[in-house]
Amino acid sequence: MNIVLYQPEIPPNTGNIARTCACTGASLHLIRPLGFSTDEKAVRRAGLDYWDKVDVNYYDSFRELEEKYSDHNFYFATKFASKFYTEIEYKSDDFLVFGQETAGLPEEITERYKENCIRIPMLKEVRALNLANSVSIILYEALRQNGFDNLV
Amino acid sequence: MNIVLYQPEIPPNTGNIARTCACTGASLHLIRPLGFSTDEKAVRRAGLDYWDKVDVNYYDSFRELEEKYSDHNFYFATKFASKFYTEIEYKSDDFLVFGQETAGLPEEITERYKENCIRIPMLKEVRALNLANSVSIILYEALRQNGFDNLV
Repeated sequence: MNIVLYQPEIPPNTGNIARTCACTGASLHLIRPLGFSTDEKAVRRAGLDYWDKVDVNYYDSFRELEEKYSDHNFYFATKFASKFYTEIEYKSDDFLVFGQETAGLPEEITERYKENCIRIPMLKEVRALNLANSVSIILYEALRQNGFDNLV
Repeated sequence: MNIVLYQPEIPPNTGNIARTCACTGASLHLIRPLGFSTDEKAVRRAGLDYWDKVDVNYYDSFRELEEKYSDHNFYFATKFASKFYTEIEYKSDDFLVFGQETAGLPEEITERYKENCIRIPMLKEVRALNLANSVSIILYEALRQNGFDNLV
């Protein structure tokens, strides 16, 4: 599986997500600009044990990633989606895309991929789940559907 | 659903889990001693927006919780479990129990409930997932099985 973070802002979130990638073998794709340096203490503290065990890739724009992996499926986590994340049949090489902690994903992207937008069901009128938790929930649903291949 | 944290140590983890409870309507049960005060700045910073929206309950021992809810199912997240968390059929009033960040759950408990121990599949020889992520993954699998009742 592939996890994409679009311009992530909060270092411990990215560190935490890197840890989840290390635990599952998922690749991590980061769209610049990042709200921090990946050498920065905060990321290192949150993710140091894992950072070197994760396949981390950097891109200057979403377009760059999109063109490189144009034969893959992309799914976009946004609270504006009409589908639940559990309604998708995931393949093991899919890309799961997550937006900024505060602003989410740009409308330009979610409009273009409307059918591939997914959301995590929650109670009405609550703020959203933490980003790292959202990644874990959707990633593990995709892994579950694929029989937890390679995991023990 | 019910989330139980056994003697949690790290305030932002508990704050983060409280946020997940607030987003889902799950009740939070904390077994003392806690590694922090629930007034403490760190919890408030991590969970302040949510803490007052969560049904938080305190117990002096696991035994106290166990006796109070003896007619419910308890499941225990531990890397020593033989079952995957996806092999359980969850009911909406089940209790999902998570151990300390460093030490996990006491053997006394996991031995007694061997058949109810569950684990999250991961790659071999990696450190475990972050506690808050583990809670989210198992909680959302239980919610999924129960049709995301009350969630939108």
